[in-house]
Amino acid sequence: MSYSSEPSVFDSISQPTLLLDCAVVRENLQFMTRKILNAGVRFRPHFKTHQSAEIGQWFREAGINAITVSSVDMAEYFASAGWQDILIAFSLNLRQLERIELLARKVHLEVLVENEAAVQALGRISPTPFSLWIKVDAGAHRTGIGYTSVEEIRNLARKIKTQPHLQLRGLLTHSGNTYHCNSIDEVIRTFRSGADRLNEIRNSLRDEFPSLQISVGDTPGCSTCQDFSGIDELRPGNFIFYDAQQFLIGSCTTEQIAVAVACPVVALHRQRNEVVVYGGAIHLSKDWLEVDGNISFGLVALAEGRHWSRPIAGAAVRSLSQEHGVAQFTRGIPEELRVGDLLFILPAHSFLTVQALKNYLTLEGKVISTMNSQYPVKPHSMNSLH
Amino acid sequence: MSYSSEPSVFDSISQPTLLLDCAVVRENLQFMTRKILNAGVRFRPHFKTHQSAEIGQWFREAGINAITVSSVDMAEYFASAGWQDILIAFSLNLRQLERIELLARKVHLEVLVENEAAVQALGRISPTPFSLWIKVDAGAHRTGIGYTSVEEIRNLARKIKTQPHLQLRGLLTHSGNTYHCNSIDEVIRTFRSGADRLNEIRNSLRDEFPSLQISVGDTPGCSTCQDFSGIDELRPGNFIFYDAQQFLIGSCTTEQIAVAVACPVVALHRQRNEVVVYGGAIHLSKDWLEVDGNISFGLVALAEGRHWSRPIAGAAVRSLSQEHGVAQFTRGIPEELRVGDLLFILPAHSFLTVQALKNYLTLEGKVISTMNSQYPVKPHSMNSLH
Repeated sequence: MSYSSEPSVFDSISQPTLLLDCAVVRENLQFMTRKILNAGVRFRPHFKTHQSAEIGQWFREAGINAITVSSVDMAEYFASAGWQDILIAFSLNLRQLERIELLARKVHLEVLVENEAAVQALGRISPTPFSLWIKVDAGAHRTGIGYTSVEEIRNLARKIKTQPHLQLRGLLTHSGNTYHCNSIDEVIRTFRSGADRLNEIRNSLRDEFPSLQISVGDTPGCSTCQDFSGIDELRPGNFIFYDAQQFLIGSCTTEQIAVAVACPVVALHRQRNEVVVYGGAIHLSKDWLEVDGNISFGLVALAEGRHWSRPIAGAAVRSLSQEHGVAQFTRGIPEELRVGDLLFILPAHSFLTVQALKNYLTLEGKVISTMNSQYPVKPHSMNSLH
Repeated sequence: MSYSSEPSVFDSISQPTLLLDCAVVRENLQFMTRKILNAGVRFRPHFKTHQSAEIGQWFREAGINAITVSSVDMAEYFASAGWQDILIAFSLNLRQLERIELLARKVHLEVLVENEAAVQALGRISPTPFSLWIKVDAGAHRTGIGYTSVEEIRNLARKIKTQPHLQLRGLLTHSGNTYHCNSIDEVIRTFRSGADRLNEIRNSLRDEFPSLQISVGDTPGCSTCQDFSGIDELRPGNFIFYDAQQFLIGSCTTEQIAVAVACPVVALHRQRNEVVVYGGAIHLSKDWLEVDGNISFGLVALAEGRHWSRPIAGAAVRSLSQEHGVAQFTRGIPEELRVGDLLFILPAHSFLTVQALKNYLTLEGKVISTMNSQYPVKPHSMNSLH
């Protein structure tokens, strides 16, 4: 490891802090934008991963003008930041209809339906126009009408057609099952099978509904698959940061992971190769990976100049309590590591870590806020020791 | 189920909302306070579970004047709320020393040390007085000096003694291993073994350090054990709300669980006995239980008048993605349940759910804030549909 003699942003860190490597973010953004646009597909990135108006601006600079969000709160936040074309990729919540309608009067809003109750509820709030997607379960078994239930999909499409202010855009799925794949080949097969199943439904309905679009997309599939045929819209989100889970799936290299949580070391237990850090479930979330039968809450790196190092081979966060994390170094704790130093944890799941930590600190020392920041623009000095 | 004809607080709920049954909170508080004080032990409850100045006030009314917290942020928050005797039950983080010292000038502050680096760092900030506990690992293997390393503990105690502004209070452990027990007998054995191991160390050091105190305490142990002999201070926190995990361990009944997350139903999949709710990892946390080999993120209840019902037998939250939860009803989804209704999830882990949701809504319709609330006193109308 080489340490610079000039003061580093790391010196100012006193508690678990979400670091952002902006150069990697921009590379990830450029990679995915080119890949999708070169394939002639519409790119509607999911903004839940970063949750930040400022980072959203980088997408706008890359030519993106349509986005995906996962909640009404997030839709309102990004509408306030100037986004005019927003898909709420969450099955319609009838208890938020009034806020949804209010928003639909201001921006072009697209929503998901998977049952008659939702279509009826939207029908009652005429004349506000809505664009609807029918959510299809293409194999992930979370939400949506099962892909084999073509007549149920047809009946729902007919209900939508009876309401002149409701426009049916097409069929949408989230192939969340790519997250459970164990190889890139399996990711690609799962991703393609989702897209193909939606195309079969589209073909079955073509006589009655000739212009249905297909929207799919998840980061594992979009990162690894080269064949986007039969797809009109892709919606990956996680690719902007990636994380340990995506690395494990094979979606990215560790160099493409743009976030790490800097955690102060509070105890070293060399006899059992364990380092205890200030950094627990309330900072990293309790999402986990299973690697070779062991649970891991993240990869572990050290300081390397003004950046974090590559992940240490054989090291992982093995347990998390609320404020504590325990990193195990199966090949021994680095000799030079001391109480008071920082460990860098590449989280299992970047979205949940962003949700927990609420602000980014860039490697250049700038704070970037998210929709959950308690102080929308918090000067970094407030986080520092003084 | 019986529904009242008068408007209920449930009608105002549009998104995942942390409900608080204040009557149960007060019963839990009274139960634990009586049990500990009747045993002649000092009660220093952990406030990380509720994180609320207002709920803290209920403890003050019950005669409590010393508290435990898990972070410097939390210590500052409760000091601002008037608490004058605060233990930060977290191994000293050298990167927060300046804030810790500032706080120690205002209130009686107790901190944990487990290595020389921490004692030296505190030594350098004389003359601010500090009360120190040596953190002992009595078998949980997270932090602390191993209970068999008596000479290491003696050496650290001697280092502390050389600094006149540092007062050694005694030996402290957290028997976090009670959380992994499978029966009440095992909880009691684990809890007592932690206390007994600290007493053995105390006896070994008595000649040189005659007045060491013993501080232990975790909710499973304090809830189930009747023998607090050899213990000077107990620090349970979770007992104030309990949760599904504590029920599983045997620390409480389901009637003693004081929190539930109300989640709107967005989809019913009757053919596979699954209900999809708006309520995911960002609301409940991703902490989980293992029940009969299956993962569960919480127990599931229905509305029953102005309260939630008892947990439905055979129902559990089987998967959580970021915003979605999937509840499985092995005995069939209740016939009357509709899209737009509320499900009530008794969380796996109340602390992490409080951390995620930031505010409570009482069954009487009052919002209670926590240290993480974005608006310290947010009127409930801001959460409602209008």
